[in-house]
Amino acid sequence: MNIITISREFGSGGRELGKRIADALNIAYYDTEIISEIAKLTNLDENYISTISEKGVPSFNFHFGHTFGATINQTAMDVVVTQHKVIKQLAQKGDCVIVGRSADKILSDLNPFKIFVYADMDAKLKRCREKEYEDSDLDDKQLIKKIKAIDAGRKRMYEFVCGGEWGNMSQYNLCVNTSGVAIKDLSIKVADYAKTWFECQKSK
Amino acid sequence: MNIITISREFGSGGRELGKRIADALNIAYYDTEIISEIAKLTNLDENYISTISEKGVPSFNFHFGHTFGATINQTAMDVVVTQHKVIKQLAQKGDCVIVGRSADKILSDLNPFKIFVYADMDAKLKRCREKEYEDSDLDDKQLIKKIKAIDAGRKRMYEFVCGGEWGNMSQYNLCVNTSGVAIKDLSIKVADYAKTWFECQKSK
Repeated sequence: MNIITISREFGSGGRELGKRIADALNIAYYDTEIISEIAKLTNLDENYISTISEKGVPSFNFHFGHTFGATINQTAMDVVVTQHKVIKQLAQKGDCVIVGRSADKILSDLNPFKIFVYADMDAKLKRCREKEYEDSDLDDKQLIKKIKAIDAGRKRMYEFVCGGEWGNMSQYNLCVNTSGVAIKDLSIKVADYAKTWFECQKSK
Repeated sequence: MNIITISREFGSGGRELGKRIADALNIAYYDTEIISEIAKLTNLDENYISTISEKGVPSFNFHFGHTFGATINQTAMDVVVTQHKVIKQLAQKGDCVIVGRSADKILSDLNPFKIFVYADMDAKLKRCREKEYEDSDLDDKQLIKKIKAIDAGRKRMYEFVCGGEWGNMSQYNLCVNTSGVAIKDLSIKVADYAKTWFECQKSK
């Protein structure tokens, strides 16, 4: 099974890269499909699932006598558990590209080709301005704050789910900086690289 | 000018990758040539230059009254300054691949395509065992210690020369994990990626 996972900084174009790689290799692509599938299985709202999926499970701090601690939200935990299940099921269907959601760790026994996509802050701002119309009322400072907060959420969720260190290059097979490049052109090259990487694994 | 710089962890095969990329693109390749050129210009021993080039400039700690401080070795500084000059001169000759020696920072005004090559420790040990006959008397623990010490030296030298953070992915355009892959096959894909990256820069 040839599985490609895409971890990405917000605004780096990881989603576009993933979609184009899937198209170039003519294989399935899973992104928001995962959210819809979890919604079907849990009867929860897609927006809620999406928030948990990106930001992690919120904890509730409590104080009992002299003891401080935190308890976790059970509904949010259901989302995490179901997400694990859905990602494993999708991967079993055949070759695919899966974006985000700690899929690289969840599917580690299938030895996926793990890509991390990142970019300079200027390039991320530019991409957000072009793509995310909902952010048009934010100034640069606010948008940078939003980008950093989303990535901090992804990091927190990744570490909660699998204990790995999100964005640490040693965990990935290829780290792609999309600053100042046309993802359309480079995606074909990354797809080609992945294809050769899978051939290397088979010939071992 | 299309300049490709290779920064690499010791044992990751960065040198082989660089040589193969240069061959694939039919462009010049500079590695030990830099050391020979510095030797010609400074009349210093190539082994000494190589050590400074990799490990950085040694400092001499002194104690004067109540003041502690450090002074740097002038001959070693000459190597660093000459290395800067040689790398800039080589880059002016035309398209090339330059391995190590902080070339990515030294040539930043030429907007080089910056690659970082890394691998898991197991893969690095295997590669060292296959390539470095001089280490055949070291056990795994000693070899890991050597690998880490060489990388620490590269990091120190990089930070001394340019203030950047060696191995921080944000500084590179592509980070390639060579664990469990045939560099021979993947080098062609990286060369192809670099070619497209340069085309993107020109069309901007």
